[in-house]
Amino acid sequence: MSILVVGSVALDTVETPFGQAKEALGGAAVYFSYAASFFNPVRLVGVIGDDFPDEHLELLKGRDIDLSGLERAKGATFRWKGRYDYDLNEAHTLDTQLNVFETFAPKIPESFRDSEFVFLANIQPRLQLQVAQQVSAPRIIACDTMNFWIEGAYDQLRETLKKVDILVINDAEARELAREPSMVKAARQILKWGPSTLVVKRGEYGVLMFTDHSVFSAPAYPLEDVYDPTGAGDTFAGGFMGYLSTVEDINDASIRQAIVFGSTLASFNVEDFSLGRMKTLEMQDILDRFAEFKLLSHFEEVEA
Amino acid sequence: MSILVVGSVALDTVETPFGQAKEALGGAAVYFSYAASFFNPVRLVGVIGDDFPDEHLELLKGRDIDLSGLERAKGATFRWKGRYDYDLNEAHTLDTQLNVFETFAPKIPESFRDSEFVFLANIQPRLQLQVAQQVSAPRIIACDTMNFWIEGAYDQLRETLKKVDILVINDAEARELAREPSMVKAARQILKWGPSTLVVKRGEYGVLMFTDHSVFSAPAYPLEDVYDPTGAGDTFAGGFMGYLSTVEDINDASIRQAIVFGSTLASFNVEDFSLGRMKTLEMQDILDRFAEFKLLSHFEEVEA
Repeated sequence: MSILVVGSVALDTVETPFGQAKEALGGAAVYFSYAASFFNPVRLVGVIGDDFPDEHLELLKGRDIDLSGLERAKGATFRWKGRYDYDLNEAHTLDTQLNVFETFAPKIPESFRDSEFVFLANIQPRLQLQVAQQVSAPRIIACDTMNFWIEGAYDQLRETLKKVDILVINDAEARELAREPSMVKAARQILKWGPSTLVVKRGEYGVLMFTDHSVFSAPAYPLEDVYDPTGAGDTFAGGFMGYLSTVEDINDASIRQAIVFGSTLASFNVEDFSLGRMKTLEMQDILDRFAEFKLLSHFEEVEA
Repeated sequence: MSILVVGSVALDTVETPFGQAKEALGGAAVYFSYAASFFNPVRLVGVIGDDFPDEHLELLKGRDIDLSGLERAKGATFRWKGRYDYDLNEAHTLDTQLNVFETFAPKIPESFRDSEFVFLANIQPRLQLQVAQQVSAPRIIACDTMNFWIEGAYDQLRETLKKVDILVINDAEARELAREPSMVKAARQILKWGPSTLVVKRGEYGVLMFTDHSVFSAPAYPLEDVYDPTGAGDTFAGGFMGYLSTVEDINDASIRQAIVFGSTLASFNVEDFSLGRMKTLEMQDILDRFAEFKLLSHFEEVEA
């Protein structure tokens, strides 16, 4: 099964109460790819500048991530600088330099067009739609977005959503998109606009999934310390789509499992800066933590 | 099995985006008692003024709630006035009139001293300790508190905790009590101070339970609208202690089930003002929603 991701590749400088990382490998497409690569090969479409370190490329290639859609443009790579305080749910952006990402127009290589699992990371909704239209026979198109596009490109985003099967956003974004403070009502509204599944990320409070006929609440893994939440959402999406790409039937049961795999991958990602923890992660660690999620949320039925 | 609760009985005036209630029946001991009474008879210790409406007393008596420990004092009943905005997690107190509750010194009737399940609702920690010491052979003492006592009576609260089996507080209170922003570390600290179980209420994000050897994450029921969150925490505690009072073995499995029963009762309570929804609730409704909680959090294991 082939997984395609289109999104940012970045050099991140991050400060948290536990330390800092300088110009570390980051970006939505990178976090997504690395997590998804535990399940199936990944095809990455993005752009880097001529200053992008080779070692990062080697790291990704070593994970069976196909970089033939990674354009190298003249100029500097996208850079993001942020700080997290003790409330690690909220990122404070200190500086954003879009650089070569500013004029990013994703070109899907011919060899990528048969991708079955497509993740449209957070980019301009019009570009997301163009990508969705270039894929010949997708099984699942999933999509992320952010408040910037909800506020600044609302109509385009609504157009893009018509092509999306699974929307993966955070709770504030879901409420803002639906213009509705009640999450249950917001979900019902969004499900009328295209996606058949809405996955709502709630940081340390876990994940909610809504479909027309089902609601699922997944816990977050109770970590003692979150060292760096950067990339948690895209790592979640990578684990989620990665697992989905391995199942025969995409249905309520396998989507629930995929959410727990996504949560599992994200819980590892936040244990270190950048991809620090991910680099040493093994499939057995993932399966062990999946089992811990099962214990974490388990309770026995009662006789009615 | 006998359940004892000591706490406030109040007349609440509440405004929410959905409407308002004026001088409606409220107070921690009332919400707790009503919820617990679905499982076993309850004994209530509290104080009311000479203005307390008889109809409220009749309502409670009709639920097998023993009011022989409910003192009637000269003066006005405790009154609380509050408002909730769209963020229903946060109460804005507009007015508090302690009245007869200001000098409340709980007297446990002789006939209540053999109570096996004791809930110390949120009152002065010294008074909570006195109650705990007057009960002859408790199986479980559970306790609530609030930021006011954590800040103003910290040492007394720590003394009280030595006698407490299960501490039931919200997440901000847990972090403040332990003086620790990480919830996992805060829990570990609090479990050294007396309680063998910490139950952390997180409003719309559900409940976390910590013991020395186990963590449990229970979802909240995804309601379309929360009409009035007043009393949700005490209703949770009532359902929790009520169910525990029915089981043979109090262990990890039954405490998890008790948390889901507490969450179930609380999810009904917030569907209307005061005890509006609770008055029409039947045991079958509770069992049906318990089963919905099971579906809500269910996912299948994977083969390792």
